[in-house]
Amino acid sequence: MNKQLTEIDHVRPNCGVIGVWGRPEASTLAYLGLYALQHRGQESAGIVSSDGSKLYHHARMGLVADVFRSREILDRLPGSMAIGHNRYSTTGKSTPDNVQPLLVEDRTGPIAISHNGNLVNYTPLRKFLEEEGSLFQTSSDSELILQLLARSHGKTLSDRLVEALKMVRGAYSLVLLTARQMIVLRDPHGFRPLCLGKFNGGTVVASESCALDLLEAEYVRDIEPGEILVIDESGLNSIKFASSSHKAHCIFEFVYFSRPDSRVFGDNVDKTRRKLGHSLARAHPALDADYIISVPDSSNTAALGFAHESGKPFEIALIRNHYVGRTFIEPEQPMRDFGVKIKFNPVVGVLKGKRVVVVEDSIVRGTTLKKLVRLVRKAGVREVHVRVSSPPIRNPCFYGMNFPTRSELMAAWHSVEEIREFIEADSLEYLTPEELLAAVPHQDCQGYCTACFTGNYPVPIDDEDGPVRFDW
Amino acid sequence: MNKQLTEIDHVRPNCGVIGVWGRPEASTLAYLGLYALQHRGQESAGIVSSDGSKLYHHARMGLVADVFRSREILDRLPGSMAIGHNRYSTTGKSTPDNVQPLLVEDRTGPIAISHNGNLVNYTPLRKFLEEEGSLFQTSSDSELILQLLARSHGKTLSDRLVEALKMVRGAYSLVLLTARQMIVLRDPHGFRPLCLGKFNGGTVVASESCALDLLEAEYVRDIEPGEILVIDESGLNSIKFASSSHKAHCIFEFVYFSRPDSRVFGDNVDKTRRKLGHSLARAHPALDADYIISVPDSSNTAALGFAHESGKPFEIALIRNHYVGRTFIEPEQPMRDFGVKIKFNPVVGVLKGKRVVVVEDSIVRGTTLKKLVRLVRKAGVREVHVRVSSPPIRNPCFYGMNFPTRSELMAAWHSVEEIREFIEADSLEYLTPEELLAAVPHQDCQGYCTACFTGNYPVPIDDEDGPVRFDW
Amino acid sequence: MNKQLTEIDHVRPNCGVIGVWGRPEASTLAYLGLYALQHRGQESAGIVSSDGSKLYHHARMGLVADVFRSREILDRLPGSMAIGHNRYSTTGKSTPDNVQPLLVEDRTGPIAISHNGNLVNYTPLRKFLEEEGSLFQTSSDSELILQLLARSHGKTLSDRLVEALKMVRGAYSLVLLTARQMIVLRDPHGFRPLCLGKFNGGTVVASESCALDLLEAEYVRDIEPGEILVIDESGLNSIKFASSSHKAHCIFEFVYFSRPDSRVFGDNVDKTRRKLGHSLARAHPALDADYIISVPDSSNTAALGFAHESGKPFEIALIRNHYVGRTFIEPEQPMRDFGVKIKFNPVVGVLKGKRVVVVEDSIVRGTTLKKLVRLVRKAGVREVHVRVSSPPIRNPCFYGMNFPTRSELMAAWHSVEEIREFIEADSLEYLTPEELLAAVPHQDCQGYCTACFTGNYPVPIDDEDGPVRFDW
Amino acid sequence: MNKQLTEIDHVRPNCGVIGVWGRPEASTLAYLGLYALQHRGQESAGIVSSDGSKLYHHARMGLVADVFRSREILDRLPGSMAIGHNRYSTTGKSTPDNVQPLLVEDRTGPIAISHNGNLVNYTPLRKFLEEEGSLFQTSSDSELILQLLARSHGKTLSDRLVEALKMVRGAYSLVLLTARQMIVLRDPHGFRPLCLGKFNGGTVVASESCALDLLEAEYVRDIEPGEILVIDESGLNSIKFASSSHKAHCIFEFVYFSRPDSRVFGDNVDKTRRKLGHSLARAHPALDADYIISVPDSSNTAALGFAHESGKPFEIALIRNHYVGRTFIEPEQPMRDFGVKIKFNPVVGVLKGKRVVVVEDSIVRGTTLKKLVRLVRKAGVREVHVRVSSPPIRNPCFYGMNFPTRSELMAAWHSVEEIREFIEADSLEYLTPEELLAAVPHQDCQGYCTACFTGNYPVPIDDEDGPVRFDW
Repeated sequence: MNKQLTEIDHVRPNCGVIGVWGRPEASTLAYLGLYALQHRGQESAGIVSSDGSKLYHHARMGLVADVFRSREILDRLPGSMAIGHNRYSTTGKSTPDNVQPLLVEDRTGPIAISHNGNLVNYTPLRKFLEEEGSLFQTSSDSELILQLLARSHGKTLSDRLVEALKMVRGAYSLVLLTARQMIVLRDPHGFRPLCLGKFNGGTVVASESCALDLLEAEYVRDIEPGEILVIDESGLNSIKFASSSHKAHCIFEFVYFSRPDSRVFGDNVDKTRRKLGHSLARAHPALDADYIISVPDSSNTAALGFAHESGKPFEIALIRNHYVGRTFIEPEQPMRDFGVKIKFNPVVGVLKGKRVVVVEDSIVRGTTLKKLVRLVRKAGVREVHVRVSSPPIRNPCFYGMNFPTRSELMAAWHSVEEIREFIEADSLEYLTPEELLAAVPHQDCQGYCTACFTGNYPVPIDDEDGPVRFDW
Repeated sequence: MNKQLTEIDHVRPNCGVIGVWGRPEASTLAYLGLYALQHRGQESAGIVSSDGSKLYHHARMGLVADVFRSREILDRLPGSMAIGHNRYSTTGKSTPDNVQPLLVEDRTGPIAISHNGNLVNYTPLRKFLEEEGSLFQTSSDSELILQLLARSHGKTLSDRLVEALKMVRGAYSLVLLTARQMIVLRDPHGFRPLCLGKFNGGTVVASESCALDLLEAEYVRDIEPGEILVIDESGLNSIKFASSSHKAHCIFEFVYFSRPDSRVFGDNVDKTRRKLGHSLARAHPALDADYIISVPDSSNTAALGFAHESGKPFEIALIRNHYVGRTFIEPEQPMRDFGVKIKFNPVVGVLKGKRVVVVEDSIVRGTTLKKLVRLVRKAGVREVHVRVSSPPIRNPCFYGMNFPTRSELMAAWHSVEEIREFIEADSLEYLTPEELLAAVPHQDCQGYCTACFTGNYPVPIDDEDGPVRFDW
Repeated sequence: MNKQLTEIDHVRPNCGVIGVWGRPEASTLAYLGLYALQHRGQESAGIVSSDGSKLYHHARMGLVADVFRSREILDRLPGSMAIGHNRYSTTGKSTPDNVQPLLVEDRTGPIAISHNGNLVNYTPLRKFLEEEGSLFQTSSDSELILQLLARSHGKTLSDRLVEALKMVRGAYSLVLLTARQMIVLRDPHGFRPLCLGKFNGGTVVASESCALDLLEAEYVRDIEPGEILVIDESGLNSIKFASSSHKAHCIFEFVYFSRPDSRVFGDNVDKTRRKLGHSLARAHPALDADYIISVPDSSNTAALGFAHESGKPFEIALIRNHYVGRTFIEPEQPMRDFGVKIKFNPVVGVLKGKRVVVVEDSIVRGTTLKKLVRLVRKAGVREVHVRVSSPPIRNPCFYGMNFPTRSELMAAWHSVEEIREFIEADSLEYLTPEELLAAVPHQDCQGYCTACFTGNYPVPIDDEDGPVRFDW
Repeated sequence: MNKQLTEIDHVRPNCGVIGVWGRPEASTLAYLGLYALQHRGQESAGIVSSDGSKLYHHARMGLVADVFRSREILDRLPGSMAIGHNRYSTTGKSTPDNVQPLLVEDRTGPIAISHNGNLVNYTPLRKFLEEEGSLFQTSSDSELILQLLARSHGKTLSDRLVEALKMVRGAYSLVLLTARQMIVLRDPHGFRPLCLGKFNGGTVVASESCALDLLEAEYVRDIEPGEILVIDESGLNSIKFASSSHKAHCIFEFVYFSRPDSRVFGDNVDKTRRKLGHSLARAHPALDADYIISVPDSSNTAALGFAHESGKPFEIALIRNHYVGRTFIEPEQPMRDFGVKIKFNPVVGVLKGKRVVVVEDSIVRGTTLKKLVRLVRKAGVREVHVRVSSPPIRNPCFYGMNFPTRSELMAAWHSVEEIREFIEADSLEYLTPEELLAAVPHQDCQGYCTACFTGNYPVPIDDEDGPVRFDW
């Protein structure tokens, strides 16, 4: 009867990756980077380091601070190069075997990989490789990339990567480590973020710039979509292995995934997320509301934006308990809305007798929001108006977001009015896809992947038997 | 080199207590209650339950969710009565031996105690008892109360309690459990909070009402200062064992300790804390500031109050990392302000080029605030004005707050201007004691203990060799 | 369905104690000593050390090597004095609370105790102390001794001990530690062993001399019954606090408890145990047997003695699995005689078609032996003759052996012939009490306690409500 | 300063394998089987089970009872088929990655392997496979067999195995498991043992018959060298995939590895080991000795044989401490011969003034024996004559024994007289290879591998760069 409290109703980010080059204590820095990226993956954490001749590995299920619980563990990861990984499972079961970074050996020696993203032709590729006699030890698409790499015949690692990547399609931001090289790359569409920083003689790459901030590294630029960056003793060499006229940045990074203090896709998340709040307030106001409240902490920024634009006061009406662990023991006599109540407690003094706008960043199943609405009503609120700073989610993601299946997506099967009725709100309004695209940077419709909202998949899904990784 | 991240610069609350009577799964409910009270004590947690004939005990160092990590542990605490305890050490070393509830046996059978507070005549009493031949297994003042109880000769437990309590002076909110009775009491001055609730045939007492909320219990009233409440099969019986013309509620509960969604000393914490913000804004405005920001999460409410009163926008400019564990591995090459940076990251977009008011609830050593000011300056802020929603802390507490020694209290030795200089703020202003007292409920000067601000100790400290528990 | 494999049918020894004085790394030496005494108590282990001003404590449920699993744990026990304890529970539940050494504080400061033995007037004494207002935190008779000590008024610790010990009756070999003194003593009857050794400037006391051997200490002498030995900076001082004309050494130490390489009660265990085998072979021969086999390892020595005396070959016919842990997972489809089979496997080649004598040291319930007989029969043995190197156990022990209750003692209710039938042996013979006493050193009938065999209790049992510690 | 106490001076056995087919609770039975085989590998343990459609996996570093510490772990291994493995590392580092059984997936689905033995052409084969594009996740030769299997094209698993095994040379007793089949096989020379049993509708295979005994299975026969046994719903099918005119059973199984209660290579170990003792006594008597003593437990049987043949009494003169864990904390002030003393204590009463024969099964480095001789001398022995029940070990093993390198083999560089001097014995004699071969069953010189004694390697070692797995 243990409740997985992290399974609160959200699209889950997929993974965080980090790479550190040219610094003593590289593994400690990678550990700190993973810690800053903890929100991108809370199921497992791992680091592989290199001292120039050997690779060292430690990876486990658990939060970063639990996986690396002592100085001794980091001491067993020596060397001035290290890559790390936080994970939610996407492709591949969430089991110890799929914990990353993955460390293998091919004819050129040991190689490790950290992968953020998801391939869309995993199944036919795996079938092909199995026919060729390949042996698989995990069900992760990262191993598949390494299998292709092992079979390619180029002279250098980057040559072989170019050859291997010709076979794969989908979303991938990768950091690879051999004894003497770190290689960083991003798929041609640039689905997932990946940025480059410098510090004190060293180089760092990370999914989000908040990791650079903690390490006191200076943000340099994003890794380009279709770029391979080879980092070794001779310096940094950039290779363009592919190009796409269409960028397809995951727009959900701005909506929910990334931390507000990060910079992704070249822009400040806080600034953009605030703009979503502004647009929402303009296009979907709640004229009679007394207060604007957020569901802490993920919709704080959008709610602040909404409040500023609407001129109505922002209020903290839900106190979040941050001691929530990964599992929680529920009473055997079930308590109504236990999972939400253990996480949030309403501030009666703020809510009683008021009309409030609850700003939420997205709705997936709607079950948590329904409980939250009930919670604030019980605290005596008069009216609850829900405003969502993104459009209804109607389609699954095949590029690395950790989604429920389509059958569980509330908006795939129900109208906005039906959802409103389900969550028992007095009103419910969403940003439209157009409003969303207008609010994010570069206002170029082709620069973003909005498949989950619109169904327009920028890279076709051709897993032979359908995208079997998702059970719909 | 592991850094205790919880040692961030704050007066620490002391303890949380909970008691559940008359409900199956009493220990599970106590566990949930402790979870809601986790902010009051993060060093250890424990529960003692009774099934009407035997007492059962489980207590350990660690957070609630770690100490009670499985259903099996709670199953070993059967019965419909249970008391629990969260602790920071006050008197007594923070060691496994001092973990509460304490369970002992005297001639009347087994008895357990959960104690929030601190006695001020511990040393002479202990000396007296030792001379009488008493044997001590802990250095906690809770054991001392039980020793007195064991020596008293009344007929009933409450008679014996009244006799024992005549000897002790100081702050104590207590919950005791025997095989068939739960006894709840509060010292005559009512230093620490303790409230009573009802739910579904059962009774609950807790340090703060947020525990009642989670358990879906209805708040009934506070336990009165000087009241003993005996709960057993015959119902609830209230006894007045002492009275004091002066109440001495710890005013710090409103400033910082209690959760904003709680009700303590009969009033809503959020409402009161917001008023502190209003007063601060009125008496100590920062006229040119662009934004009001808080140090999340503890000063959020006061900052919101300040913002509303001043008419300036409230902003979220510091992102707090809630994955911080109790210890964290620091790099061996020291990083400047590491402890603060691992916890907070500034949102550059909000801060750059702005003049901001940082609202903080209290300043103890000033070291953390100094680092925070540096952090936001580095993010490009133009001016930093610090406003503190309580007066300078100049005196140690002997009634159960977990304070640094006087020598470490910044304001005990330095003027406000010196502190401003130390924390490198552009301006620094505090609420005065008078403004603070004017803002809290009942505006009766004698109703609160403000010793840490004013040096007026409502109960004299007469530990023979001085208050040896605090090393100044 | 976990089977406690240590509950194989034996009287269990009670406890092992160790004390080290005047050596750096005293706690490490105490740890090694406990390790050598592991056979005397496998439920818990603990050490208290002193650095001359403070006492340090570590004690847990588990085997020595598990309780002290790292150098770090021993490093937290500094100083040149240390006492240790291995335990099976005797009086007192086997719970974490009763783990020893016990560390408390009275008016003279901190004091720790390690106790081997059992008091016979625990119940009235406890009642008396409770009436006087004493508070008990454990149900161990060791705490009771400390309570008496806390109430006595002598000038020195040894004066106070003499006063306290006047109240208690029963079996006790004690090692106490204060910040600057180690005190060692033995009850006037000398029930349990305790010996003194010297090494390299330091002093050591231990339950058995095998601990001295491992520490490379030289055996000096036994602590005398009724002797208090005070060890401090001024040297060793011996005080005679009581004398008894009757010694009452536990004869079971020779039969089973002590390790054969130890010296107890001034004599070599191996030599004596071998004599039991000789006597058994002379008085209870098995004329037609082909081989003499033992139940390894506890009856090896007696079986060898039997073999030498009888002139028949000693054989190893049962292979013991030494990887047996404390618990073992049994199949859900029950396997016949699983508990014995997991521990012993018969060597078919030795047993097939032969007539064998199985030498066993003692029989308690008979259930294990029954299974063993079945096991060797299944291996094809022709005849099984059981010879027991001690008399039938007919009475419970109140002096510190860990006995089943009388109702479970096979020989309390059944004749030898009935037992033979139950265990399905072809013949069964025991040593008589007279033969046993004739074989042990000093041949003085009054020198030993043989209560479990004869019912002659050297110290009357006067726990008011009968010896309640044993539930018959 | 933790001492690995298992590294006492012995050739270590390599691995134990178990397979259970057609029984509910197959994984629990495999666990019990591994427990009986614990002496064959104490570094790691693992089980893979199948429920007919999926494979389930649990494997860790540690002893069997630690790796499978709860019923819950076994419950996660459902199905009526299971294979298991105990390991000392042979090829491959002793790291978590090399823990077996190995579980992978190729185009035919999941497959698991348990391997006892060592390939002698690992290096060229791995190089070949890497050139072909294979990716390796471990450095174990078991993965190499699976890689070959993945590349072979036969219709059935056994066809593909025959094809794959054509490539490999060396020692291998294998148990493989797919969702619906268990496959068992042994290399053509039959280096390592593997036997077949039946029980209650099910089938079991194990390295030694002692596992069958514990499971109450009946021994049927050995798996033949060069035989593949396919076990599935259609029953048992035997295929002869290769034959060799020369058998090469590892003679060390009789000398030391196997448990005396086991049957290996078709014969009773106890009986054979006893014959080694007889031969040793006849060819290398010690005429003036008073006693024959063994180094418990491994040389017990040979010592008994020696005693019986010589007519001199067998004595137990060394008490072994069976509570020794895998690591032990040594004092920082080093104690002479600590590692041996923690394990053995001499019985002074037996040794003092006597002339003894110490029977040892084998000598590798000689360092432990030197300490043991010193230990018994210190106990007062007059003469120590060492007799070894196998010849001097002069050559490394490439077929799966866990040997020190040649440079550490005492007898590779020193004469018997030099070794005698080193270990400080009064005399030292070994069995000759001829005497050894005369004592083991079938007296056929070609039936055994004696390479470690004679240097005659039955399968040439052709790892391209020499047998790189061993660093000489």
